[in-house]
Amino acid sequence: MNKTELIEDPKELWNLIREDKYLKSTAGVALGYLQTNLVTLPSEYAFDFLLFCQRNPKPCPILEVMEPGEYEPKILAKGADIRTDIPYYRIYEHGKLVNETKNIIDYWKDDLVSFLIGCSFTFETAMLNANISLRHIEQDTTVPMYITNLETQAAGKFSGPTVVSMRPIKKEHLVRTVQVTSRFPGTHGAPLHIGNPNEIGINNIDAPDFGEKVEIKENEIPVFWACGVTPQAVALKSKPPIMITHSPGYMFVTSTRDDSVAVI
Amino acid sequence: MNKTELIEDPKELWNLIREDKYLKSTAGVALGYLQTNLVTLPSEYAFDFLLFCQRNPKPCPILEVMEPGEYEPKILAKGADIRTDIPYYRIYEHGKLVNETKNIIDYWKDDLVSFLIGCSFTFETAMLNANISLRHIEQDTTVPMYITNLETQAAGKFSGPTVVSMRPIKKEHLVRTVQVTSRFPGTHGAPLHIGNPNEIGINNIDAPDFGEKVEIKENEIPVFWACGVTPQAVALKSKPPIMITHSPGYMFVTSTRDDSVAVI
Repeated sequence: MNKTELIEDPKELWNLIREDKYLKSTAGVALGYLQTNLVTLPSEYAFDFLLFCQRNPKPCPILEVMEPGEYEPKILAKGADIRTDIPYYRIYEHGKLVNETKNIIDYWKDDLVSFLIGCSFTFETAMLNANISLRHIEQDTTVPMYITNLETQAAGKFSGPTVVSMRPIKKEHLVRTVQVTSRFPGTHGAPLHIGNPNEIGINNIDAPDFGEKVEIKENEIPVFWACGVTPQAVALKSKPPIMITHSPGYMFVTSTRDDSVAVI
Repeated sequence: MNKTELIEDPKELWNLIREDKYLKSTAGVALGYLQTNLVTLPSEYAFDFLLFCQRNPKPCPILEVMEPGEYEPKILAKGADIRTDIPYYRIYEHGKLVNETKNIIDYWKDDLVSFLIGCSFTFETAMLNANISLRHIEQDTTVPMYITNLETQAAGKFSGPTVVSMRPIKKEHLVRTVQVTSRFPGTHGAPLHIGNPNEIGINNIDAPDFGEKVEIKENEIPVFWACGVTPQAVALKSKPPIMITHSPGYMFVTSTRDDSVAVI
């Protein structure tokens, strides 16, 4: 195992990332600390986007919103800088990916509003702690994700279908899976759907829209969770002049413990 | 018991209120349906207020936000009209109460944004169902409320102390009280504080800032919950040109069941 994989302290990680010395996925790093999605939008889009997230808390669990121009997440990660402390960022202009960068200093403007949105790493850690195995982690692949026929609740400029992730779960682990993930509504929480993929508009479970397919064994049931790709997809559809996100898998690591957002 | 007290159907209630035929408190009406606080503000205040609520979910649990100019709560109360379906409204201009009215048709403007915020009636019903008695209901008085030294998380124009409500709970009911109310984070949820009032800046428990004092018996502990008066007090402090709320005790009754906002 590489030395950097053993990083346990989020502050140490921020410093390494800031100096371009950590350029890998954040999966498994600083275990037990909340990791988040980043969506940064111009302030004229901020009310509609915050309202969209409020109306769709399962795919879009907001954990912190920084006010226009602010780049320190004072609630979840005091001392961090959202412009430099993520390994890779994606820059979108008018809905199109135009650049992938190691910081966003050159793109920063005083009217940008940054949203930190919960990430499934939190409930996956809780599942692993409960001895529920996760195939995409065993296989070291990206979790399969699907565009469903479940419409989100629209808000202002924002609308679109819910994107879900799928994990095959042993039948005897279904109840525990619902219990364990229900503790974390701030990081996608309880499943959205259990069983037949067709019922939520997924026609071919072996052809995910994002990520990689995984095998579903005979004693397993596909279980679906609302996915953080939803707010990104919905925001891009509205073609804002600029939108900045983390690059997939390269999350923002906070200095707040997972358990601090558990409901019970 | 008066005939109108037996109203079980929220839609029947909306019609009666709309025709000025129901002008009483909504406590105990349409039992099992969510009742909410109303805060209506000009759209220029909407992002900051929504962000304030997002940062302070215990005192300000947002259940629905209508977009600028909209007056039908499509998610919680399809067919209702927020301008007419509450018995009494309060109109504030620049932070001062200027009128109390039976509808707000004359005050309505296309840029007003209305927020429906969870109300303690929901968790009180759950407590009564669990055989936990509530003194202010036994005595038919308004629950005592106190301004604490617990600062809210400020957002934009909005900041101020948390207001709490207090209910004396028998020692043997403390655990069940925490369990039952924890199911409802959307309606103030778990207690904020249990025990010594001084620790949250309340110097005289017999002199509440709002509502009426209640006796705390020898085998009882004072238990404190974040209160929906907090967002109103904080919004008024910012002196918006206009702000409209329900009158205390005269809530908006939705057609959505309490249990639909329970987390587990």
